[in-house]
Amino acid sequence: MSTNPADIAIFKRRESEARSYCRGFDAVFTSAKGSEMITRDGTRYIDFLAGCSSLNYGHNDPDLKEALIDHLQSDGLAHGLDLHTDAKAAFLDAFDQHILKPRKMDHKVMFTGPTGANAVEAALKLARKVTGRTNVIAFTNGFHGVTLGALSATGNSYHRGGAGTTLNGVTRMPYDGYFPGNTDTADFLEAMLKDRSSGIDAPAAILLETVQGEGGLNAARPEWIHRVAALAKEHGALLIVDDIQAGCGRTGGFFSFEDMGITPDIITLAKSVSGFGLPMALLLVRPEHDVFGPAEHNGTFRGNTHAFVTARVAVTKFWVDDRFQKEVAARARMLTTALEEMAEFLPGAKLKGRGMMQGLDVGSGDLAAAICARAFKDGLIIETSGNEDQVVKVLAPLTTDNDTFLKGLKILRNAMRIATDSSKFAAE
Amino acid sequence: MSTNPADIAIFKRRESEARSYCRGFDAVFTSAKGSEMITRDGTRYIDFLAGCSSLNYGHNDPDLKEALIDHLQSDGLAHGLDLHTDAKAAFLDAFDQHILKPRKMDHKVMFTGPTGANAVEAALKLARKVTGRTNVIAFTNGFHGVTLGALSATGNSYHRGGAGTTLNGVTRMPYDGYFPGNTDTADFLEAMLKDRSSGIDAPAAILLETVQGEGGLNAARPEWIHRVAALAKEHGALLIVDDIQAGCGRTGGFFSFEDMGITPDIITLAKSVSGFGLPMALLLVRPEHDVFGPAEHNGTFRGNTHAFVTARVAVTKFWVDDRFQKEVAARARMLTTALEEMAEFLPGAKLKGRGMMQGLDVGSGDLAAAICARAFKDGLIIETSGNEDQVVKVLAPLTTDNDTFLKGLKILRNAMRIATDSSKFAAE
Amino acid sequence: MSTNPADIAIFKRRESEARSYCRGFDAVFTSAKGSEMITRDGTRYIDFLAGCSSLNYGHNDPDLKEALIDHLQSDGLAHGLDLHTDAKAAFLDAFDQHILKPRKMDHKVMFTGPTGANAVEAALKLARKVTGRTNVIAFTNGFHGVTLGALSATGNSYHRGGAGTTLNGVTRMPYDGYFPGNTDTADFLEAMLKDRSSGIDAPAAILLETVQGEGGLNAARPEWIHRVAALAKEHGALLIVDDIQAGCGRTGGFFSFEDMGITPDIITLAKSVSGFGLPMALLLVRPEHDVFGPAEHNGTFRGNTHAFVTARVAVTKFWVDDRFQKEVAARARMLTTALEEMAEFLPGAKLKGRGMMQGLDVGSGDLAAAICARAFKDGLIIETSGNEDQVVKVLAPLTTDNDTFLKGLKILRNAMRIATDSSKFAAE
Amino acid sequence: MSTNPADIAIFKRRESEARSYCRGFDAVFTSAKGSEMITRDGTRYIDFLAGCSSLNYGHNDPDLKEALIDHLQSDGLAHGLDLHTDAKAAFLDAFDQHILKPRKMDHKVMFTGPTGANAVEAALKLARKVTGRTNVIAFTNGFHGVTLGALSATGNSYHRGGAGTTLNGVTRMPYDGYFPGNTDTADFLEAMLKDRSSGIDAPAAILLETVQGEGGLNAARPEWIHRVAALAKEHGALLIVDDIQAGCGRTGGFFSFEDMGITPDIITLAKSVSGFGLPMALLLVRPEHDVFGPAEHNGTFRGNTHAFVTARVAVTKFWVDDRFQKEVAARARMLTTALEEMAEFLPGAKLKGRGMMQGLDVGSGDLAAAICARAFKDGLIIETSGNEDQVVKVLAPLTTDNDTFLKGLKILRNAMRIATDSSKFAAE
Repeated sequence: MSTNPADIAIFKRRESEARSYCRGFDAVFTSAKGSEMITRDGTRYIDFLAGCSSLNYGHNDPDLKEALIDHLQSDGLAHGLDLHTDAKAAFLDAFDQHILKPRKMDHKVMFTGPTGANAVEAALKLARKVTGRTNVIAFTNGFHGVTLGALSATGNSYHRGGAGTTLNGVTRMPYDGYFPGNTDTADFLEAMLKDRSSGIDAPAAILLETVQGEGGLNAARPEWIHRVAALAKEHGALLIVDDIQAGCGRTGGFFSFEDMGITPDIITLAKSVSGFGLPMALLLVRPEHDVFGPAEHNGTFRGNTHAFVTARVAVTKFWVDDRFQKEVAARARMLTTALEEMAEFLPGAKLKGRGMMQGLDVGSGDLAAAICARAFKDGLIIETSGNEDQVVKVLAPLTTDNDTFLKGLKILRNAMRIATDSSKFAAE
Repeated sequence: MSTNPADIAIFKRRESEARSYCRGFDAVFTSAKGSEMITRDGTRYIDFLAGCSSLNYGHNDPDLKEALIDHLQSDGLAHGLDLHTDAKAAFLDAFDQHILKPRKMDHKVMFTGPTGANAVEAALKLARKVTGRTNVIAFTNGFHGVTLGALSATGNSYHRGGAGTTLNGVTRMPYDGYFPGNTDTADFLEAMLKDRSSGIDAPAAILLETVQGEGGLNAARPEWIHRVAALAKEHGALLIVDDIQAGCGRTGGFFSFEDMGITPDIITLAKSVSGFGLPMALLLVRPEHDVFGPAEHNGTFRGNTHAFVTARVAVTKFWVDDRFQKEVAARARMLTTALEEMAEFLPGAKLKGRGMMQGLDVGSGDLAAAICARAFKDGLIIETSGNEDQVVKVLAPLTTDNDTFLKGLKILRNAMRIATDSSKFAAE
Repeated sequence: MSTNPADIAIFKRRESEARSYCRGFDAVFTSAKGSEMITRDGTRYIDFLAGCSSLNYGHNDPDLKEALIDHLQSDGLAHGLDLHTDAKAAFLDAFDQHILKPRKMDHKVMFTGPTGANAVEAALKLARKVTGRTNVIAFTNGFHGVTLGALSATGNSYHRGGAGTTLNGVTRMPYDGYFPGNTDTADFLEAMLKDRSSGIDAPAAILLETVQGEGGLNAARPEWIHRVAALAKEHGALLIVDDIQAGCGRTGGFFSFEDMGITPDIITLAKSVSGFGLPMALLLVRPEHDVFGPAEHNGTFRGNTHAFVTARVAVTKFWVDDRFQKEVAARARMLTTALEEMAEFLPGAKLKGRGMMQGLDVGSGDLAAAICARAFKDGLIIETSGNEDQVVKVLAPLTTDNDTFLKGLKILRNAMRIATDSSKFAAE
Repeated sequence: MSTNPADIAIFKRRESEARSYCRGFDAVFTSAKGSEMITRDGTRYIDFLAGCSSLNYGHNDPDLKEALIDHLQSDGLAHGLDLHTDAKAAFLDAFDQHILKPRKMDHKVMFTGPTGANAVEAALKLARKVTGRTNVIAFTNGFHGVTLGALSATGNSYHRGGAGTTLNGVTRMPYDGYFPGNTDTADFLEAMLKDRSSGIDAPAAILLETVQGEGGLNAARPEWIHRVAALAKEHGALLIVDDIQAGCGRTGGFFSFEDMGITPDIITLAKSVSGFGLPMALLLVRPEHDVFGPAEHNGTFRGNTHAFVTARVAVTKFWVDDRFQKEVAARARMLTTALEEMAEFLPGAKLKGRGMMQGLDVGSGDLAAAICARAFKDGLIIETSGNEDQVVKVLAPLTTDNDTFLKGLKILRNAMRIATDSSKFAAE
């Protein structure tokens, strides 16, 4: 099943060396449906990557697809700047009714440029404008994008090195669990904020992911998040939850912070918000902080109308009641069970994450890479994350049916066995 | 034809105050075709805004639309991260064969996050990485986006003010024609670069638009651009042409700098590159500068496969020979003639821009706003630009048929007459 | 003993509001000798402030004074830029022979502008130049000066707020003892440096005071400093010890880090280095890091020849053998004993610092201020430090004779009693 | 007269490579009086460098010296922090009465750390605090010091390169005369400030030298300075005149901007303000801008009492009437005449500067260096300045008697002839 070199010659010749996923998954993909991706030559792969959580409802969901085709066939707007459009109104209505209202949220919706990084940039600018402060507190192993403002908040040194200039305006604090033992990093954060000589300037915002997707599936405890939220409030900082990867059902609820008793001042959403993998990003902003003037943060593609169409259907299909959420919860339990079982024969492996973003820290980036490579050979697309790429991360579509899910997990388990054995063998 | 308040209640209630175009064009749009946009109640508008030059081939071009529907119906990938896909290969092939090769360009194609700002961010990072320098030279009235890195290069104080923090790393130089009289701003640039005590740090890049779309349709002379390119080379800086608004045929050729005898080191493209208004952005990078490592600049939506599909068809439909280019040139001449005629009854009005991005500097933002408001009443969507919003800017789809084009220009001429008369009246 | 308003009218009328010490010590001083300062009206004060440790050898030491008068009378150079001068040669010889050689140090001596802040600025620039990195690690409650580069490393928010702009390029880490309990902050530093996704950019330098004078007399444990030095080396960062306040004998040895088994890459000295309170500052730099080009860091007053004269005599008078060091050690023990005794009747008071920079954390800035105010009334000049100004800090001249020292301590003890009683009284 | 290597061995062995002037003037100096410096072996040099304008009243002025010796003998304070002292009061009184009042200035006096760079840092911080803005406009070829904040405003690339990090917060504008022809750079400044899309953020301050000492003796026209002052006012920016090198009589009046009809908001003074070459620096600040809190900008050596003593005598000796000023003006005319004469036999040489800071631009740094080297051989200390070190700069003490002055000028003229002849010879 190795790829014909001629098939990928054009990429080698013409595409930038910055390309990356294609290096690990060396095939040419043509189509996809649900949790499967199909290559040019008809090979089928189970997709446990899901566009890095951009395809929470799977590929080409039939209802979303139908709505989009209808829209196209009736010459619906494709690109609407930030004009009023039917499609945007319908999305806002659905989002208002099924997402915000039931959660007692009255946030304004700000459509930013359609990338997660753009939403983060807008969030940081807004928090700085609201507070008149510049410092933003972000956490170890946080990932928020690679444009200059967002990159300052991103922890990864490889990405930071790409800036080619100094990254300013962000103070780094240890995420929950960063200290060994019982030391609570929120104590440290509190001490630094209270101490007038700590050297930490009064923050405009505290920016966090409740589960750090790229950072290695570190899941903060609800009580830690609750306390950080309280510290933000106490010190006049806005709480920004970056829910780009963990939101849209990935951890169970629509938002990753539900049931934690907090209401973030700003929430960033992107990835799965369109439901179809189409570029779309937004901020949710408490009304009192909605202080940007018209077009103060602008961008050409804020009105990707196709995405509004599919996003609306996604909301009405999956989020009008709690059935989908319960299904996801059940599938997440299956995932936990399966990973725990795998951890048993992987000495030192640790279960990471929560909901449908769980994985195993296998202790070494080399081993994790070997596992993913073997899995791909056997028909499963899966990736690593973490500061040493040491975490094998399961990001299957939330809609994956049980058979496919179990099949994928079986491939993964087998890959783990084989890679672990090779690794032991190599060590001996 | 005024809009029913109930129609837009959801926007007022739920959308952020950052929304902008919808404030001037107070209707709810549903569909669009070619150069026309249709509202919910069936009113038709001629579109001389074209998604700020994102819809150079008009709305819902039938060939592009058909290809996209086919792709959808066959469950073609919607979201492909940066995996190898059929659709991307086909786009790269077409772009290579019909755009790059005929222009003797061997640039690598880097897909960035699908916004112009993201492409600019990537370009600045890359130039800094290549040169090991941080300073970037940008020009008065330049507009390059509003994320932190791009915003540093943007001149507009309203947008800069949104940053909430200091914008660093950019030195501002006067664009061509900024000095009155015969003084050439390239002389000043040269003096500053040569003087070891000028305080201008050695630049990583010189970033420019050949026509400043947002800055007021300032069109640099080819000889100025040629000289700036030579200065960049002489001083070890990369030349970045931001062709996001002026490229993709807007000024005549596919690139705005054709026939100027320069080959930029980096070119940014976005807006019309997908041909359908779908989010897509890319860098063209000389092979020797293609130094980002895998995923060093990454992003979830780099593989908007729908956009690859339509972008490919756009290339093969419009750019395989010079017919389209000649049509655009003819239409641009019509535009010049019409605007010159309008300038006659507008004392002090100045023709600005070139190709299909021309307009009139009417001397005051209030007058320009009145003109656009009146035009909208009469069925024409048109916007202003410039540091005082004093330039009425025609950005019609390049594919606008002659009848529609003349009809739109007639509405504009009429609006100018009426607004000018009112303005005179008010002054008396 | 209250000051005649006419005496200080000129200060009120003409001197900037930035003046500070004079607000607490409301007298007009005329002369000083040893550990005593005398006002215009002849009132004598014992000086436990010693120019913030700039007068370690007391006021107007007769030998230094005589040498300076001789120099003046023979028209010795006053201002020598950085020309070769007899006086500089003699200082360098003495410093080389009596300070560097016995400590097996081969550091080069760089004369910077004659302020501590200037030395810190030079140190940071040099470390950045040597390593090609920009990030500098500094610590909570560190104080390094208030010019822009140094201020970035200073923790105090009041001073930081004076910048009027964002302070960049410094990462803040917790100083030794910052965490309650047994958690070692060096563990945290190590974790952050090793973690490739911690968000801490590779540091050019780790900058620390072994005892934080302004920060509240926090004294780091030798083993912590030793470990931080090792971490610096392991991670390619230069170790900069800011010995401006703690050096020149203040903590016992000439340098504050002696007997810790470390050799800093760069050491900053100022304050008492001239021995007479004259402006002088210098860097000690390991030869391999002495990479500034001629005048790359320059300044008009680098050659304060008067200071070279007194600095040379100070070295030869106090540091040719260990007698002075032993005296200081004995006096420091007296100080410890006296402060421990005072701590007994001050519930919660904590002994801080080491050597001749010790004090009592009395738990509240108000109480500390009241103590100092009362002491001044009784003829003792003494100041506070710490993030809440809660530490009463004894910085007597190292040469203070035992009678004067005990007299001063007695005034202090009495002031503590009275202020504590008032404070209790007020609380009841 | 070549220096014995043994004499300077200690400098080579122990002093940093950052030393500079001593490289060009390879002697060991011991004493100095008036306008002469005497080496260890008794060789006498005429001093046309004057500590870079720090010794405007010559070396060891007998009256200043006597006052300082008296102060020392009576155990006057040497180091007074910012306490009230007799010496400071006397200086403030004299400065108030003889400098400020006659010029109708009511500026407050802020003593900063005793270096020019520190005064500049304080000025920039203060302007930013007053205005709440960060951007500062500085000029091509400006020199303001090498600490991070000041260095951002300094134009010289060699010094800027020493920062090791990006220099932010300053926008560079062309100084008077920077454009060839009749184009007035103030027009450009005005255009940039008025244009809302120029990319120039609203400035906190405009910082300028009226004569650029290090930048090559560029003297701005009074009308240009007047206009820049008006632009500052119009745009809400503070006008800061850096009078560190050009003030204290160097250009004729006590301030360099007298008779220009402007009153700067902030003035920086250092170098010759102590009159004796002792480290001292200060800001003059309009009362309404005196907004630093107590110690918000602090520093140990703000109270260099020795400098206050000599500074007071300097004021009362030289500035109580206009006699000194007239003498300086006469001497400046001699200088102009002499330099014009020299310019005649130096093809292309241009007279630069004004008052007692004039020189010749000889067109090449090599030639200028050769001239200074030859002059030194013949007993004259003189230095170059300018972006290519192409300006031979006469900075003789203002008090130089006519015989000595003419003698020095004769040596200079001779050096010019010889160096020019050699240069011609080499070229043939």
